[in-house]
Amino acid sequence: MKVAIMGYGTIGSGVAEILEVNKEVIAKRCGEALELKYVLDLRDFEGEPIADKIVHDYQTIAQDPEVAIVVETMGGVEPAYTFVKAMLEQGKHVTTSNKALVADKGAELIEIARNHKVNFLFEASVGGGIPIIRPLLSCLTGDVIEEITGIVNGTTNYMMTKMTQEGLEFDDVLKDAQAKGYAEKDPTADIEGHDACRKIAILTSLVCGRQVDYQDIPTEGISHISATDIKYAKKLGRVIKLLATSKEQDGSYVARVAPYLLSSEHPLYNVNDVFNAIFVHGNMLGDGMFYGSGAGKLPTASAVVGDMVAIAKHIDKNIYLEWEKEKLVLADADQQINQFFVRSGASESEIENIFGNVTFVEIGLDDEIGFVTEPMRECDYHTKAEAIGNVRQMIRLGQ
Amino acid sequence: MKVAIMGYGTIGSGVAEILEVNKEVIAKRCGEALELKYVLDLRDFEGEPIADKIVHDYQTIAQDPEVAIVVETMGGVEPAYTFVKAMLEQGKHVTTSNKALVADKGAELIEIARNHKVNFLFEASVGGGIPIIRPLLSCLTGDVIEEITGIVNGTTNYMMTKMTQEGLEFDDVLKDAQAKGYAEKDPTADIEGHDACRKIAILTSLVCGRQVDYQDIPTEGISHISATDIKYAKKLGRVIKLLATSKEQDGSYVARVAPYLLSSEHPLYNVNDVFNAIFVHGNMLGDGMFYGSGAGKLPTASAVVGDMVAIAKHIDKNIYLEWEKEKLVLADADQQINQFFVRSGASESEIENIFGNVTFVEIGLDDEIGFVTEPMRECDYHTKAEAIGNVRQMIRLGQ
Repeated sequence: MKVAIMGYGTIGSGVAEILEVNKEVIAKRCGEALELKYVLDLRDFEGEPIADKIVHDYQTIAQDPEVAIVVETMGGVEPAYTFVKAMLEQGKHVTTSNKALVADKGAELIEIARNHKVNFLFEASVGGGIPIIRPLLSCLTGDVIEEITGIVNGTTNYMMTKMTQEGLEFDDVLKDAQAKGYAEKDPTADIEGHDACRKIAILTSLVCGRQVDYQDIPTEGISHISATDIKYAKKLGRVIKLLATSKEQDGSYVARVAPYLLSSEHPLYNVNDVFNAIFVHGNMLGDGMFYGSGAGKLPTASAVVGDMVAIAKHIDKNIYLEWEKEKLVLADADQQINQFFVRSGASESEIENIFGNVTFVEIGLDDEIGFVTEPMRECDYHTKAEAIGNVRQMIRLGQ
Repeated sequence: MKVAIMGYGTIGSGVAEILEVNKEVIAKRCGEALELKYVLDLRDFEGEPIADKIVHDYQTIAQDPEVAIVVETMGGVEPAYTFVKAMLEQGKHVTTSNKALVADKGAELIEIARNHKVNFLFEASVGGGIPIIRPLLSCLTGDVIEEITGIVNGTTNYMMTKMTQEGLEFDDVLKDAQAKGYAEKDPTADIEGHDACRKIAILTSLVCGRQVDYQDIPTEGISHISATDIKYAKKLGRVIKLLATSKEQDGSYVARVAPYLLSSEHPLYNVNDVFNAIFVHGNMLGDGMFYGSGAGKLPTASAVVGDMVAIAKHIDKNIYLEWEKEKLVLADADQQINQFFVRSGASESEIENIFGNVTFVEIGLDDEIGFVTEPMRECDYHTKAEAIGNVRQMIRLGQ
């Protein structure tokens, strides 16, 4: 069976490596060997072993009837979307690691694949090497999924771990992460939560079977978290983690990406460094968690190759995926009930006058005090915060 | 689509409950409703809502062409084997939660199912509600799985957690577990590791695609673990957990069920109470872990219903499962290299003479001392232990 890779960057070259290193077990599981015929890339890779497979025009792949499976690991919506669509329309199965593409065009590409009796799979788009999409779609199907909450961005989890363990400031940790190759030169997508937002949009779409637009999800990153916040967190016996979360509310889901203060009882408390983990609560299953390498060349490529094997085993069949184009209107995030940790320059009596019963947290600063509110609606919190003024920070408590 | 349940105990009644409570989402995911037509049980359940579905002869189900899917939740090898075989031969799909049946007859029942173009699925037989079998078979297929290590028995994990947290003796904790319904009246299968042994035999079979006989796996339980051992564990900064483990060695796998001393860095260190977790290491994926409710009525039934949905979606197709009858000869467990914690009445100099470099651990007992050996082969450990004599306890260190 002939396959092609579009995009020979980190993940794409990882896929080629796995197809070579694990050739025998993969052939055994597929029933036949997967042979790499083309690699689409702008570069030539002259002198490298891959050079004789390189093509520059995606139509070379689309028009070759021998190619049965195409891997898309270019990233970004365009030109990935145009290329993937062409492959599906030519009756080729596609697997991708590209969360931007899936979050934006998932429902449409699934429909095109179904109409052409091929598969569009994307296990690697969320949680890197961690199996989460297929377990959700093929195992937890007796359950109503009431919550999915994940640490789904390795870069920010590495940074938050480092800030927690070493008491460093955000900028220093970012430089360290960039030096180690964990953060990109332009780190915006990771540190502002955009990456995590696309991933929770994908997971929520799969759980409800409808289109969830990532633009509808309130998203905060971690760039406003400081060493001072970490000191407060320690005083509270908690750690700060960037979570992407989706919970059933009012017959829909309420989703959010934001830093949360987690207690040691929280299942995601111990997920450190570049690891990812996704917590799931089903109405029958109860609590479950999937943990592993959420990023990196080989773990992510491992998930892509897992999709290729699944495709090879269903080569004549569309695997039914419930993800309709019809948009899900998310529940109002302003009505969600949370507990809030707040740092303010207001006086204790001002704070108690407005917020009522709070728990104060001191780390020895003269010009501010921290406090934790009772559970209240988001919109009520914002009204009260405006009333006391002088609010320097707010971080939600994880439940 | 008509379905039947064989065995209306804890799990079987849980399946009926989920089919009722989550009727709508299940119908949506299957493409049609799953309607419970028969329940096979020795009892009549007179006056209960289920009474009109009860039958006493399995042939009533086997001979009814309307029944497409049969759930087996009776437990034990016979008569479950006879009944399941009859159902498959009549062209009915079967899903089971019965690890004794799967460990003993899995390869054969998979072959019978394949010959009759139906499916024999058993997600619930390992790890209760935790998706592990389908992720292994359909996600981690680009990897060579080099290790699977799990806490796969909720009863013993509850007991070890309780002993660790409260310093109680084994017998007292067992009585508590029985009172809470976590341990059976005859707890042998759990506390002696037989249950965990069948589960790791199943997982190893699936990873290598061949038959692994559970009788070949060296198995120790936890009934010899005392409050004194827990004191030593605390001194070492470790916890004792019953692990079922399988590692690649010499082109095969070496498997073992035994209590292990885990450090706080071990991914299974924090898995407490009745929870289960399964750690997987793939040569490309790296580390992954699956965590959740490993037992209990609804979590386990949730996995059974997940299988039913998978069957309904593949009603005309056998899902290929690699588990040949040909037996895998396990690697020699005596050649495995481990570190050992030992309690002995021998003197420090006697111990050092025989074991060489060791780390002593004292908890203030006059008549014995604890020590941790360097890594060594199992067979060498046993020779040395015999030489010093007076060995009261040996527990391996988890790596």
